[in-house]
Amino acid sequence: MPQINRERLLSDLKTLRTFGAMDNGVVRRALSPVDVEARKWLMQKYTEAGLDAEMDQLANVIGRTKNPGKPLLIGSHSDTQPRGGWLDGALGVIYGLEVARALGEDPTTKHLPVDAVSWQDEESAFMSCMGSRSFCGMTTHEEEAAASDDDGRPLFQAIEEAGLKDHPRFKCPDDHYHGYLEAHIEQGAFLVDADEKIGVVTGIVGIRGLNIKITGQQNHAGTTTMARRADASTALVEFAYKIHQEFPKLANEATVWTMGKMDVHPGATSIVPGYAEVHLQFRDRTEDLLDALEAKAMEVAEEVNGASKCELVVEQGRSPLRASPMNDGFQGHIRDAAEAHHPGKWRSMPSAAAHDAQILSSKMPSAMMFIPSLGGISHDFAEDSRDEDIMDGGQVLADAAAAILLEAQG
Amino acid sequence: MPQINRERLLSDLKTLRTFGAMDNGVVRRALSPVDVEARKWLMQKYTEAGLDAEMDQLANVIGRTKNPGKPLLIGSHSDTQPRGGWLDGALGVIYGLEVARALGEDPTTKHLPVDAVSWQDEESAFMSCMGSRSFCGMTTHEEEAAASDDDGRPLFQAIEEAGLKDHPRFKCPDDHYHGYLEAHIEQGAFLVDADEKIGVVTGIVGIRGLNIKITGQQNHAGTTTMARRADASTALVEFAYKIHQEFPKLANEATVWTMGKMDVHPGATSIVPGYAEVHLQFRDRTEDLLDALEAKAMEVAEEVNGASKCELVVEQGRSPLRASPMNDGFQGHIRDAAEAHHPGKWRSMPSAAAHDAQILSSKMPSAMMFIPSLGGISHDFAEDSRDEDIMDGGQVLADAAAAILLEAQG
Repeated sequence: MPQINRERLLSDLKTLRTFGAMDNGVVRRALSPVDVEARKWLMQKYTEAGLDAEMDQLANVIGRTKNPGKPLLIGSHSDTQPRGGWLDGALGVIYGLEVARALGEDPTTKHLPVDAVSWQDEESAFMSCMGSRSFCGMTTHEEEAAASDDDGRPLFQAIEEAGLKDHPRFKCPDDHYHGYLEAHIEQGAFLVDADEKIGVVTGIVGIRGLNIKITGQQNHAGTTTMARRADASTALVEFAYKIHQEFPKLANEATVWTMGKMDVHPGATSIVPGYAEVHLQFRDRTEDLLDALEAKAMEVAEEVNGASKCELVVEQGRSPLRASPMNDGFQGHIRDAAEAHHPGKWRSMPSAAAHDAQILSSKMPSAMMFIPSLGGISHDFAEDSRDEDIMDGGQVLADAAAAILLEAQG
Repeated sequence: MPQINRERLLSDLKTLRTFGAMDNGVVRRALSPVDVEARKWLMQKYTEAGLDAEMDQLANVIGRTKNPGKPLLIGSHSDTQPRGGWLDGALGVIYGLEVARALGEDPTTKHLPVDAVSWQDEESAFMSCMGSRSFCGMTTHEEEAAASDDDGRPLFQAIEEAGLKDHPRFKCPDDHYHGYLEAHIEQGAFLVDADEKIGVVTGIVGIRGLNIKITGQQNHAGTTTMARRADASTALVEFAYKIHQEFPKLANEATVWTMGKMDVHPGATSIVPGYAEVHLQFRDRTEDLLDALEAKAMEVAEEVNGASKCELVVEQGRSPLRASPMNDGFQGHIRDAAEAHHPGKWRSMPSAAAHDAQILSSKMPSAMMFIPSLGGISHDFAEDSRDEDIMDGGQVLADAAAAILLEAQG
């Protein structure tokens, strides 16, 4: 079986880290100059690995195999959060490169077709999983025309400024790929807490968001008696409190919900707020439970609507992600490779974070593998993993990729 | 008894409205060019009324009587909220001018000493009731040096830009004044709902503010299980919900509390907030009840501190205002004048809003009078009162002022 080059893997990962390095983390937002620069460097690495490297209009980068047969596509994303960790998507991107190289260097696997990929904007500078959505035909021109980053720069302007306007878009051809593999740090602490090496992802949780818009009556915070008030902040607090009371009754241990964004207007100490907004995001492994949570949120909003003098309107958030089970056969090969290298030191587990694999799974058999995150920390400069775990994970993924393709070729 | 000139009163009030007029409201922030311009116009009106007009370093404007004896000081403030109503403080300022004129024109009262005043920055561009606080010796150099407006312009820079650096500060001389009278729109709907004409203020509520600062642990909103979270937004919601449960048990019908300012950080839909802040303001007629509410808020914060993984720290807000009873004798004269002109159409009532009279009451006998606010609306462009009520109120205040001074002179 193929052997990855452990030092080369680590060295390339550390080179990628230099593009946008800040403190212990990385700032490499989608379509920023340093992001495009990193992707050009990656194309060069793909070319050196014997792949045909191409960049599309969104700066998705694919290294295409010259081997015949239906390729296995392996990768992740190289853009980061506004203050991102150095591994996040970068790990899976360099794994894709290294697996293609390792299989190409081994006589028993050098005939196998592997494409490597780095998707654009998984981290939602413009639109979450933009690159993989575009590849899978899941974006519309209207959405893209309306998309802009935190600085208000429209997507189409960013494409033009990156000199990519005349590049084509990659589109996933029907029946072209055998499947998709993505590796990632866990971004949680199950593996590290249990001293395990590999997580075999059973499925990726679905994500929904609701915007609750609350209209009351702005007024003087002294002269308006409690009985006369229609205080939008009070209604927000009632809604949020009841969600925290009701959701645990429906949830399982993997269900999560977050109200990370709440605003009251005009936001002055002496003014009864006339308007408030809260975003409720919730995630679970099944669409059925997501349906139940959404229905409960609607019910709570209706209840607060009736009990307060405020009016609550619930709107669907942008771009929900469907709960996506991972391919059973691929999971089996990752399990086998993990057990071979680290007996008893792996587990099957869901992914609570969104990933490009969630988008790809609508088009082809897909699977994911996790390595341990130190302290479970992610989306933060402090994110890190042990070098040993990074290198060991690459070998497990290479074994699994080889096994999947060898099985496919009978 | 003196008769006010009803048309002159209304005309001057409408002229003052032109300084900073916007839509139906007024934008005349303290120490803005248009505020200082309006105050220069007011000095001219004071001079025409036979008063000695002076402006101090903060642009407080006083028109001093030439008559002997301890003057009655009458006025309010001419600065406005960021989007203020046209009456608010302006009404009481023009009442002060008109009462001085009306008493000066009547043979039975022309010997009586009336000073008219417009205080600076009641509306807290830099510091609430800044002008009257400075007059009463209730500001420190440190506070003033730290004060700046919403645009970050320091107070001392604003004074310099207004050309007032070399003006003296007015300081309330001991035992100089007989007392202070201030009229204002009600900013509530008791009078207008009951078809009454005059409110005789029994006392001004005290105001306290607490800043609750909540520190949790920022984290990924997908991979961080509910059990592992220290979500600052959840702790904020718990604190606020419990305040709304507990305060009604202590409150009377005049007690109010408001959480008009709440912020969660970083404020993203996919991030568990690591920090949150909420401001709790509460008002009541007695210091005892304010003490009890503050103790309860501390208790609730402590409770949430213990029950959540977040740390809550409670800090005192800036510039609390003490609950201030109004002078009984002055109240009696306002009641008599109201009953004479509008039998049965007045009421005694507390002021739930802060006013300069609250500051002045620490230095001299003080009283306040309200006229009806249409719809109870205030601190909004839509604020208004009927012309008839404005003119009638001026006459009641003139009668009360004359009666107070005639009594004083025996």
